[in-house]
Amino acid sequence: MDNYKITIQYDGTRYKGWQIQNGTPDTIQGKLTDILCKLTEEKIDIIGSGRTDAGVHALSQVANFHINLPKDMTEKDLLDYMNHYLPEDIAVTTIEKVDERFHARFSARQKTYRYRIHTGTASNVFERKYVYKYLDNKLDVNAMRAAAEKLIGEHDFLSFCGNRHFKKSSVRTIYNIAIMDNENEIVIDYTGNGFLQNMVRILTGTLIEVGAGIKSPDDISRIISSKNRDNAGFTAPAQGLILVNVEY
Amino acid sequence: MDNYKITIQYDGTRYKGWQIQNGTPDTIQGKLTDILCKLTEEKIDIIGSGRTDAGVHALSQVANFHINLPKDMTEKDLLDYMNHYLPEDIAVTTIEKVDERFHARFSARQKTYRYRIHTGTASNVFERKYVYKYLDNKLDVNAMRAAAEKLIGEHDFLSFCGNRHFKKSSVRTIYNIAIMDNENEIVIDYTGNGFLQNMVRILTGTLIEVGAGIKSPDDISRIISSKNRDNAGFTAPAQGLILVNVEY
Repeated sequence: MDNYKITIQYDGTRYKGWQIQNGTPDTIQGKLTDILCKLTEEKIDIIGSGRTDAGVHALSQVANFHINLPKDMTEKDLLDYMNHYLPEDIAVTTIEKVDERFHARFSARQKTYRYRIHTGTASNVFERKYVYKYLDNKLDVNAMRAAAEKLIGEHDFLSFCGNRHFKKSSVRTIYNIAIMDNENEIVIDYTGNGFLQNMVRILTGTLIEVGAGIKSPDDISRIISSKNRDNAGFTAPAQGLILVNVEY
Repeated sequence: MDNYKITIQYDGTRYKGWQIQNGTPDTIQGKLTDILCKLTEEKIDIIGSGRTDAGVHALSQVANFHINLPKDMTEKDLLDYMNHYLPEDIAVTTIEKVDERFHARFSARQKTYRYRIHTGTASNVFERKYVYKYLDNKLDVNAMRAAAEKLIGEHDFLSFCGNRHFKKSSVRTIYNIAIMDNENEIVIDYTGNGFLQNMVRILTGTLIEVGAGIKSPDDISRIISSKNRDNAGFTAPAQGLILVNVEY
């Protein structure tokens, strides 16, 4: 069987996240699997670079799967076939045959997530499903940047994990957090070697609380070392989050 | 009564256009009127700069209305009140008290509409409601630009009017047509002193047919002088069109 790597773009608004779940077809992995299984008699296992939560979007999620393509079917044919049957809020943007050892999750070196916060007085109707509306509020971006600096590096991020029963290693490395202060919008880009469940959203909620003066940048080290979810900020809503890029 | 000028942004996807219609509440003017009439006992007449078709969007539509605001209500209060009750695909972005003679339609000097055409191999899922998908097709942008030049100026645009029973003057002036050739997307900006019903969409369909080689730039003058809708191109879909700006 050949191993194919695909990049996928999706508007996560109406999905229950990436991961296939029993009894619900409304997942990205579920939609992709259904389409590939119709193409061949084999059971196809689609491996994503990681799960995205319900409502989270992707500009460029990466996945791979092993398949024997029907005779005469090219990679471009497979791309067209998938896009023809996918709903309009999911699209496969690239496809390539890769080494059989390529694994979308284990081979990933780093990921970048983006979180968008609208802070102006009026919302932009065209962006409404892709931003967190925090209207008529002022955030102290310098305080947020000071807090972000303390999050960068290798830490045990258990305080920022949404799964309170998480038993594996919660040590991750954040390479960079870039905070852009645009007119009426704050954009936060997180790049790291991996992220725990809800981690980017909890990091964002914590940075928003710092920006709003509820927490101080000096609190960050204490929050990390406490290894207690209750000490971090709120879980920012899924709709403002998008998986931008996975690097191999 | 005071005269207020507002700018309105809307995602036209689920509306039957700007203009209020008997028996259907699903128009932009209808939604705005309902909200203002609940504020005051008076009947409020909202005057738009012009109608937009069903499914057409606006980045900055302009309207005005005369109203006696409840005591102590500021312009900012009125803006907040309207945005609180408007659905999330309509937003009032600015409001200002203007001279009593200001009339959103008669005072307008020029308007700019933008039409977006996606020509790449895969669609962008986040833009899917705001572009016309013309995937896997090549358009000759130079031929489109040559045709556009022949449309600029003062002409009788009856051939580009969707209303076959139009009796008033169909003479309009197009000041400029700018065609941007971005990666996977062609963007056409039309600026003129006014546009007939469906005119921007028929101009766009005609330019697409020129780009596809079905028509030639040399056909344009003949199409204009024929004053016959059948000689122009198809009516490009509403979803690719957005009213960008109205100048006074």
